[in-house]
Amino acid sequence: MRVAVMGAGAVGTSVLELAEEYGHTVTAMADSSSAAVDAGGLDAEAVLDRKHQEGIVGSGDPEDALDGEYDVLVEATPTTLGDAEPGFGHLREALERDRHVVLANKGPVAERYSDVRELEADSAGEVRFEATVGGAIPVLSTIESFGAAQITAVRGVLNGTANFILTRMQNEGLSYEHVLAEAQDLGVAEADPTFDVEGTDAALKCVIVANVLGDDEMTLADATVQGIHELPASALDLADDDGQTIRLVGEITADGVRVGPRLIADNSALAVSGTQNIVQFDTTYAGSLYNSGRGAGGPETATAVFADIGHLD
Amino acid sequence: MRVAVMGAGAVGTSVLELAEEYGHTVTAMADSSSAAVDAGGLDAEAVLDRKHQEGIVGSGDPEDALDGEYDVLVEATPTTLGDAEPGFGHLREALERDRHVVLANKGPVAERYSDVRELEADSAGEVRFEATVGGAIPVLSTIESFGAAQITAVRGVLNGTANFILTRMQNEGLSYEHVLAEAQDLGVAEADPTFDVEGTDAALKCVIVANVLGDDEMTLADATVQGIHELPASALDLADDDGQTIRLVGEITADGVRVGPRLIADNSALAVSGTQNIVQFDTTYAGSLYNSGRGAGGPETATAVFADIGHLD
Repeated sequence: MRVAVMGAGAVGTSVLELAEEYGHTVTAMADSSSAAVDAGGLDAEAVLDRKHQEGIVGSGDPEDALDGEYDVLVEATPTTLGDAEPGFGHLREALERDRHVVLANKGPVAERYSDVRELEADSAGEVRFEATVGGAIPVLSTIESFGAAQITAVRGVLNGTANFILTRMQNEGLSYEHVLAEAQDLGVAEADPTFDVEGTDAALKCVIVANVLGDDEMTLADATVQGIHELPASALDLADDDGQTIRLVGEITADGVRVGPRLIADNSALAVSGTQNIVQFDTTYAGSLYNSGRGAGGPETATAVFADIGHLD
Repeated sequence: MRVAVMGAGAVGTSVLELAEEYGHTVTAMADSSSAAVDAGGLDAEAVLDRKHQEGIVGSGDPEDALDGEYDVLVEATPTTLGDAEPGFGHLREALERDRHVVLANKGPVAERYSDVRELEADSAGEVRFEATVGGAIPVLSTIESFGAAQITAVRGVLNGTANFILTRMQNEGLSYEHVLAEAQDLGVAEADPTFDVEGTDAALKCVIVANVLGDDEMTLADATVQGIHELPASALDLADDDGQTIRLVGEITADGVRVGPRLIADNSALAVSGTQNIVQFDTTYAGSLYNSGRGAGGPETATAVFADIGHLD
């Protein structure tokens, strides 16, 4: 397929680098201020060199990428809340041109799900968004396979940064502030870790799962969210003494979406370590199923993008 | 869809019982000596009552089910080796009539994979077989999503009976013979446990995965297989002292298919307990992913059958 990539961060860059290996051609790429467009296929190395050296991907305007020739638009600009712009506008423009859209950007399906579905209904294009939940872990395609009606609840550890911090706090007996600084040094936490440690990122993923599972549209405002940023090290010590641990768990049940620190048994499936993510699906007839793996990272998330592209007709 | 079910064991029965809930109609069902056929849809309860009371599902011959009106044939007769009959013949007849085939029977895709693919190529029908590997756990659909070319190796605990026995031997310090008898009482092991404890069942599942991943057809004869039936309790004691455990692990790598008891760390993802199964996918760009859950059981395996039916056009 011919692919246009909006966003030149970790995910967009990996999509550009790996597309050829998956049999696709990237015909356009945009960052926030520029675009490179070549209907015959971009030279990935040249584009990334220019981005590295000049801070732009090409000499065009970002809009040029949207107007180019492609079969599927990969939307990988940063997740924004509320109106989910500019990602939502990119999605709309592609669907109005009857193109497919694959999202890595959580905003449109977390904050404007019914708007997305309405635009999709009027388009020959399809919208897929496996990359928005759990990186490479097949979460949405597992729900699709089982059928949403057969899933009674979903629980998961969906933020690697928060999980890394909790794991280190418990294993080393260190304070939240100490481990956060360490995680920032390692590149596991961002300079502004708010989205991760306050539970917003995990909540957005849960809202997306809830939208896929449920009849009523949800947004971040409908989720009950508590982060790990006020958790004292003593709470983890107490848990440890009792054969338990604390994880930032997201839950999608008949009661809605809740995210917060939860006590769980050390030997529970949800007690994954470090930056690992895990999702538990409770089903009507097949008990609980678990999918786990790396929930973030450029190549990991690009893998989910290519899985989505592979599912398009 | 209209579904014909060959085989009235645990899986076939669950497919009959649950079909309506998934929006499908069972128009025919056969066991080894009889068939019930009704183009308008079978009365599941009546068929199962008759099976229970008279030992037959209806007054027709098994062939009548194959000749009936259906869109997809669910082949759930017992797995057989070598020519994989009668399951293979059922599959051929359905494909020659341009019908889809969903297999719960491992024989055709473990022992005659290229024959199956050749028949499929000449048919308007499609063959799917998620239910043959790991019960409800999405194994083949995960490979399909990622693309076989991106999977470098697959490892797994794929036999719940063997895993139950090993878990009990280690946790309770009991002998193989003792735990096997207990498992038979509980219905976790069959009266003839050979397929499970000698590794054949796990090996067949691995061969199916290898066939999906690879270019060259494999059969059971190509796999290196060792069971757990000669494992002394002392081996598990030794492992335990070292923070390790023993699991019957199946491996599909560039070197082929191997199944046997393996020492693994207690806290390794593969160290699942009881009848749980787990599959580890090593990928080129997304690290290792793990899917786990119940790997056997009628409703669990029927869930995979319905997932396959949902993927058919």
